[in-house]
Amino acid sequence: MKFVRYGERGAEKPGVLDHEGRLRDLSGVVDDLAGDVLGNLPPVDLENLPLVKGEPRIGVPVGQIGKLVAIGLNFSDHAAELNAEPPEMPIVFMKANSCINGPFDPVILPRNAHKADWEVELGIVIGKTAKYVSEAEAMDHVAGFTIVNDVSEREFQMEWGGQWTKGKSCDTFGPIGPWLVTPDEVGDVNALSMSLEVNGERMQTGNTSYMIFKVPHIVAHLSQIMTLHPGDVIATGTPPGVGMGHKPQKFLKEGDVMSASIEKLGAQRQEIQRDA
Amino acid sequence: MKFVRYGERGAEKPGVLDHEGRLRDLSGVVDDLAGDVLGNLPPVDLENLPLVKGEPRIGVPVGQIGKLVAIGLNFSDHAAELNAEPPEMPIVFMKANSCINGPFDPVILPRNAHKADWEVELGIVIGKTAKYVSEAEAMDHVAGFTIVNDVSEREFQMEWGGQWTKGKSCDTFGPIGPWLVTPDEVGDVNALSMSLEVNGERMQTGNTSYMIFKVPHIVAHLSQIMTLHPGDVIATGTPPGVGMGHKPQKFLKEGDVMSASIEKLGAQRQEIQRDA
Repeated sequence: MKFVRYGERGAEKPGVLDHEGRLRDLSGVVDDLAGDVLGNLPPVDLENLPLVKGEPRIGVPVGQIGKLVAIGLNFSDHAAELNAEPPEMPIVFMKANSCINGPFDPVILPRNAHKADWEVELGIVIGKTAKYVSEAEAMDHVAGFTIVNDVSEREFQMEWGGQWTKGKSCDTFGPIGPWLVTPDEVGDVNALSMSLEVNGERMQTGNTSYMIFKVPHIVAHLSQIMTLHPGDVIATGTPPGVGMGHKPQKFLKEGDVMSASIEKLGAQRQEIQRDA
Repeated sequence: MKFVRYGERGAEKPGVLDHEGRLRDLSGVVDDLAGDVLGNLPPVDLENLPLVKGEPRIGVPVGQIGKLVAIGLNFSDHAAELNAEPPEMPIVFMKANSCINGPFDPVILPRNAHKADWEVELGIVIGKTAKYVSEAEAMDHVAGFTIVNDVSEREFQMEWGGQWTKGKSCDTFGPIGPWLVTPDEVGDVNALSMSLEVNGERMQTGNTSYMIFKVPHIVAHLSQIMTLHPGDVIATGTPPGVGMGHKPQKFLKEGDVMSASIEKLGAQRQEIQRDA
C-alpha cells in the first residue's frame, strides 16, 4: 500500500493510492498517518474509498514526526568518493524537526549558504516502539519506507564547528515523501535503485544493495541507544554523486530543480529558492 | 517569575512559585507552558492563585519541546580541561527529543553504557520565533532560563561513530528544570554560579561568566541556520569537572545521585538506575 498525506501544510489529510495511482481519501478510516496508527495501518478496500478531486499538495506522508535521525557514510561507494574509511559502526546524527519539508515544496537556501548539496536516501518510518530489539525483530517495528533528501550545507556542516547537525538542519532541508510504502509492497529493500538529478542532469546513481549497514541493523543498533517511537524517521545514508564529491564541486543555486527517485518509492522534486 | 509544570509525566499542569516558594496552580490562566504561551507569559497575581496541595512530581517546565539543541565546548576552562582548542564558532549538536526527562526523575543507563557522565548547563527557553535575529534582538525571543543536565555516554559519543548525538540522546539523558525563570528575575545571566555534585561530592564548579559564546550570540547564530520556535530549548555548554576530565576518569553507576544547581535557577536531582 502507498499511503499519502495531502492538503495544505499543517492541515494534511490521510490518503492512499489505488491500483491506478489515483489518490483516495482515507480520512473516514484514520484521523492521520501518525503515532500508533503507523503500527496498525488499516486494511483498505481501495475501490470503495472516495476519490480525491483536483491536484492537492502532497505533504510529508507521516504526521507528528518525533525525531529525524540520519546515518552518515553508509554506502561503500559514497565513502570511497569522499576518501573516507567505511565506518565500523553506524554514524548517527540528527536533523532538527524544524527542517522537515514536503516532497514537492521549495528548498530554501539560508542567506549565508553557499555550499548546499543533495543526498537521496532511503527513509525508514517506525511503526511500533523499538527498544533493545534484535536485527531479527527489527522489521516488526517498521511501518514502511519513503524517500528523504538529506539536504546539507557543507560549509555549515564541516567548517562551522565540526558537528554535522548545523549543516543538516536548515529550514526546508528535510523533504520527505511522497509516499509511505508498506514493506510488503517494497519487497526486497536491499535491491532498490536510487537516483538524483539536478536540472535533469543525473548526479547520483546508486542502489540500496551498497548500504554498509542494512535496515534491520540500523533499527536494532539505534534501539540499543534510544527508544524509537512510532512516527520517528531514519534517513539511511546516500550513494555516490553528491555535489561535494564532484571535481570541481557543484552546489545548489537559486532556480535549480532537484529530483530524487527510489525504485518502488516514487519520486520527489524541489525547486531551489533563497531566503530574502 | 518561576514557572513550573507539575503532575504525572505527560499530564503536567502549569504552575508558578509564589514569594514564599509555594506552588500555585496556573491552569486557570493558561492551558500549558508551551508554544506561543511562552512568548506571552501572563502577568500573575500570585496571591490569588490556588495553592497546590501535597507534593506533586515536578516535570519539565516547558511542554511540547520542538527541538533540544546543545552547544559543545562553550566554557574556556572546560575546553582547557579536555585539552581542546576553544572553538571559533559555536559547536552545535542535537539531543533527541525522546531523551527529555523531568528534573527529579531517575536517569537510566542503557544496558551497554559504561561511561555515562554529567554536564550541568544553562538552558535557554525560546519564547518567540527567531530567524535571522541579531545579538541585540536575541533576548526578545527568550522566554527564560532553566537547568539542563546534558547527560552523555562518552563511549557512544566518541567511540561509536564519531558524531556526538549517539552519546547525548539516550532515554532520560535530558533532565530539564525544575523552573522556567523569566529573564527579569534572573538578572545578569552572565554571572551565575553553577555546580554539580555526585553523591554529595562536588564535581563541577563554574560560572556562566566563562561562557565563550554568550546567550545573545548563541540565539543569533542558531537563528541564521534554522528557525528557533517557541518551546525550543538550547543547552549552552558545561563548565569543568565532567567525569571524563577527571584523572582517573569517573563515570556514573547505579545508585549514584546527581545534583545540579545554577544560581537563581534552583536545583535538580536524579538517581542513577540501569535498564534491566
